Amino acid sequence: MESSLTAEMINLAKQAKGASRALARISSDEKNRCLIAMAVAIRLNSREIKDANRQDMDAATIQGLSRAMLDRLELDDKRIEAMATGLEAIAALHDPVGRVLEDRTRPNGLRLKKIAVPIGVVVIIYESRPNVTADAASLCLKTGNATILRGGKEAIHSNTLIAQVLVAAACKALPSFPKHAIQVVQTPAREAIRELLSFTQYVDLCMPRGGEGLIRAVTECSKVPVIKHYKGVCHVYIDNEADLTMAAEIVMNAKVQRPSTCNAMETMLVDSSIAAQFLPLIGKQLADKNVTLHVDQASHRLLASTDATMVPATELDWSTEYNDFILNVKVVSGLEEALDHIAHFGSGHSDAIVTQNQSTAQTFLHEVDSAAVYWNASTRFTDGGEFGMGAEIGISTDKIGARGPMGLDELTTYKWLGLGTGQIRR
Amino acid sequence: MESSLTAEMINLAKQAKGASRALARISSDEKNRCLIAMAVAIRLNSREIKDANRQDMDAATIQGLSRAMLDRLELDDKRIEAMATGLEAIAALHDPVGRVLEDRTRPNGLRLKKIAVPIGVVVIIYESRPNVTADAASLCLKTGNATILRGGKEAIHSNTLIAQVLVAAACKALPSFPKHAIQVVQTPAREAIRELLSFTQYVDLCMPRGGEGLIRAVTECSKVPVIKHYKGVCHVYIDNEADLTMAAEIVMNAKVQRPSTCNAMETMLVDSSIAAQFLPLIGKQLADKNVTLHVDQASHRLLASTDATMVPATELDWSTEYNDFILNVKVVSGLEEALDHIAHFGSGHSDAIVTQNQSTAQTFLHEVDSAAVYWNASTRFTDGGEFGMGAEIGISTDKIGARGPMGLDELTTYKWLGLGTGQIRR
Repeated sequence: MESSLTAEMINLAKQAKGASRALARISSDEKNRCLIAMAVAIRLNSREIKDANRQDMDAATIQGLSRAMLDRLELDDKRIEAMATGLEAIAALHDPVGRVLEDRTRPNGLRLKKIAVPIGVVVIIYESRPNVTADAASLCLKTGNATILRGGKEAIHSNTLIAQVLVAAACKALPSFPKHAIQVVQTPAREAIRELLSFTQYVDLCMPRGGEGLIRAVTECSKVPVIKHYKGVCHVYIDNEADLTMAAEIVMNAKVQRPSTCNAMETMLVDSSIAAQFLPLIGKQLADKNVTLHVDQASHRLLASTDATMVPATELDWSTEYNDFILNVKVVSGLEEALDHIAHFGSGHSDAIVTQNQSTAQTFLHEVDSAAVYWNASTRFTDGGEFGMGAEIGISTDKIGARGPMGLDELTTYKWLGLGTGQIRR
Repeated sequence: MESSLTAEMINLAKQAKGASRALARISSDEKNRCLIAMAVAIRLNSREIKDANRQDMDAATIQGLSRAMLDRLELDDKRIEAMATGLEAIAALHDPVGRVLEDRTRPNGLRLKKIAVPIGVVVIIYESRPNVTADAASLCLKTGNATILRGGKEAIHSNTLIAQVLVAAACKALPSFPKHAIQVVQTPAREAIRELLSFTQYVDLCMPRGGEGLIRAVTECSKVPVIKHYKGVCHVYIDNEADLTMAAEIVMNAKVQRPSTCNAMETMLVDSSIAAQFLPLIGKQLADKNVTLHVDQASHRLLASTDATMVPATELDWSTEYNDFILNVKVVSGLEEALDHIAHFGSGHSDAIVTQNQSTAQTFLHEVDSAAVYWNASTRFTDGGEFGMGAEIGISTDKIGARGPMGLDELTTYKWLGLGTGQIRR
């Protein structure tokens, strides 16, 4: 006999699958009308949302959550307004469903059209921040996908109410709106995710967002495809033919503009022939921003003249995502060693070369096997907004399905339409 | 301490990863030169290949393999020549690597190019037929992927020798060819696959080809993405506005032209308002081809006048892939019931509608969630060759990664190149 948890999860999954069929019948205009109505409803219900959030905050305070966690959990007027404007922004974007990706006619007259369609049922797993509920739900609705949301258990009241407000608004704006298009997993049981991600007949994709531990746990247990990135260990390689002023600007931007992001640089590789010139220069700038350097022997020697804080880099450091004012520094013998280092320690996220030599740049762009590879630009650009996607549901370091920033197009799949006049196979 | 099996599989996977980096440095011309040399070598070594195959055949005969299995295992001159011409055909196809999929320049001047690149390391698991070794290896080489092949244990001598011949020929034609680009798993241990598919840091994709049991077992144990199709339960729906002559041609083609294929029809759905006219007509034609019909009550009554062999359809029948001269027949009340039936029992492979009504066809094309959906054409067209892809490594009913026939393009992924002049993020 199946457990009640299994029954609950099967039910969620089946309802979502049914809703995804109904969503396929809704036009772009109707989806946008729902999104606008949702934005209005979020604003109208801001008091109720704050009340639900207060329940979560009180419980979290009693449980002794950290200040950082409490801050991420809290919904104030500003964050609620941001959810509403986010919904409006998504309504204003183009609808990726129905795009014709290929169109060809075979010699027998059979016309084949490859068109973008919704994926179906998408499970999104995330931590703490309840505003993700509105973001994820609206991106999925825009792309015609039913979504099952699993936020942190500390945010359950906030997440549930936000989803209720969204669904109620959509159903009012469009009576045919399927109320199971957006669902929140209610049980806090950890086992729920394993159950949910075993129903390959109903669930088409899972996207975990959060720390590496969460993502590894989801990937380990999932039977459905998972699109994710474990971490961003991003590199900037300063070639011997780099414009060193440009290199310094890119390094500082990639490290200190916002170190907490996955596209921030964690390791700087410097060609040995310009290291004696470049390292003292950049060491001073990094020291001014209080960046601690984890250095190899060669860079330690060349940075000695600066007042940078240095510790010897350990083997583990080269594959660590600090998300902090910490930077690995290594002197390499040239492009080949830089490529080897990135292949060995990189995370396939974002890596950059600074050089004026086009041929060196081409080799780097060609050989670095990462979602985004830059020439004379900061790694910080790997972002849906910066890529002009209008919205972003995450960044993938996977190779199957989406890679790099995931916007609306990346939340679709495709199917083939065969338009005939009675063709049969000979 | 890791087991020797684990060590063996890690070694294979690491070697493949290394080879995939080396493959990235080989030009299209060089890859084609290798493929041509491989074709020559297959012909030159046909005696040795037949000798190795003889070892497999002898062992299989002693083990009492079925005649059908022995036939699939056997390599004769004709099949060896087909392997060679297959290699030449793949050399002649365009190289999908490097295609520019998008090219845009952001307001800050950063140029973003999305380009097709190899996936990396692809594990291909297949049953019996040793010619798949050459097919799979050449498609992977053409697309710049390193491949690890796991054929049936009964074909181990044939598969190993074919791979050796291919690699030796490529290394001779191109000294920089990485010899680990094509590897065959040697151990017959079942556990080998679970081990191999746990190394997410080295293996990028697994494609199992074979029966549903094999594919489910691989999917269950894999930690790396799997692209597959479990089965093809394909439908043809005859609408009340169908041209019945066309409908009969399509039905006969979809069922009897080659019933053993995954794109053959398993279930015919007939609108009730034309069933009394259509079923006696098609029933006779199906009976002439000795097709056994699994029927619902309504079609049983309408087919009584024909000499068709009929048995009552069970619930299980509707989701069964017969791959044989057997057809489910059901009378439905119209388009809605047909859509519901396909959504419930279909396998997401290939489904067709026959109708002269454009609006009905559009609804069917839009709402059937399958890899290929046809209007007035046979389901049998779901095939890389018929789609004009030049080659096919399989058909996917997945939604993440490739969907439908998988040719060369579907063996690539993409990456983003960011070409700047010193851009930093503000």
